[in-house]
Amino acid sequence: MSALNNLEWRYAAKRMNGQKVPAEKLEKILKAIQLAPTSIGLQPFTVLVVENEELKAKMAPAIYNQPQITEGSHVLVFAAWKEYSDENVEKYLNNIATVRGIPVESLDGMRNMINGAISGKTPEQLLNWNSRQAYIALGTGLAVAAEEQVDSTPMEGFDPDALDAVLGLQEKGLRSTVILALGYRDAEKDYLSSSAKVRRNKEELFVRL
Amino acid sequence: MSALNNLEWRYAAKRMNGQKVPAEKLEKILKAIQLAPTSIGLQPFTVLVVENEELKAKMAPAIYNQPQITEGSHVLVFAAWKEYSDENVEKYLNNIATVRGIPVESLDGMRNMINGAISGKTPEQLLNWNSRQAYIALGTGLAVAAEEQVDSTPMEGFDPDALDAVLGLQEKGLRSTVILALGYRDAEKDYLSSSAKVRRNKEELFVRL
Repeated sequence: MSALNNLEWRYAAKRMNGQKVPAEKLEKILKAIQLAPTSIGLQPFTVLVVENEELKAKMAPAIYNQPQITEGSHVLVFAAWKEYSDENVEKYLNNIATVRGIPVESLDGMRNMINGAISGKTPEQLLNWNSRQAYIALGTGLAVAAEEQVDSTPMEGFDPDALDAVLGLQEKGLRSTVILALGYRDAEKDYLSSSAKVRRNKEELFVRL
Repeated sequence: MSALNNLEWRYAAKRMNGQKVPAEKLEKILKAIQLAPTSIGLQPFTVLVVENEELKAKMAPAIYNQPQITEGSHVLVFAAWKEYSDENVEKYLNNIATVRGIPVESLDGMRNMINGAISGKTPEQLLNWNSRQAYIALGTGLAVAAEEQVDSTPMEGFDPDALDAVLGLQEKGLRSTVILALGYRDAEKDYLSSSAKVRRNKEELFVRL
């Protein structure tokens, strides 16, 4: 199927059937998330890939017991970085230098640009900026999930304080931002599985200039 | 090529060669943006699809004269809605009712949920929420652009006040949020075209639980 057919096929499944996503497919979806572009390439988020059933059950109340958490195969929690430390900046620059075989000193201009971008933001603005980058990766990841015929449900309906507490994110400088539940739709239990997809018309969504 | 190969192939081209993206490919990319999921399905943004060369030249200073604007084929400006009016809520519900052939009265619960979600947010929180939805569509759109072997450059480096003024967005209740420039890389002029892609290791980006 083409990418567009796959995007037509997908929907935010409300009920899943417990079937596991094979490791090979999961790794492709994670690879897409890894490859997604982010501002200045910083990738300022961590993705918790939760497969453990006991942990999923513990997380469920913080996600208002929506069934995808326990019926899904893997729950991806995109957790934005609350700060961007000097250590992370150096790690980022060293990674570029290593991969491209260039001296890290040649990246001084980039270091200045990054520090300028970060220092000009309040903690709330920084968290928002970092969170937006995670949403790009969400959008790229779900496209590849659809190609793999894996259902994916983006979820914002959760209590971030409660979820952060279950996952110990606060002390790691992370903030849960958005969830992507992966699994397989339970077509019989999910009335949405047979509902027509609703989107704004192209004429309304796009303004051609 | 597979979706992952396409994502490996793409990068944020800094220089483009002026070649136009064929209409058929453009429409596929826009379709992917239209099909991207958003919270409650609201799609609270408008995408300006700018092809007019004169307008692109007028926009360029607000985007710090980055060459992709004039060298690219189409500039997509994702503009988040600054508010979500009752009229838009009704339009959204009527669209669902029409597409699914159900009475709009059956969507009263959804209307309450939407109004609750909107009214609980400050204007800034609402704008942030709406903007994040646009980033999902950005991530989905660039995956399909890569499948079509169209280069795409996400851009946050612009002056939103200045860009809104050029495009008359303020009076339409819109706020420019992120840009996706579409076109074709100029490999000779763009040193990045031959640079290895740098991403955080899977072991760092993902925590398996």
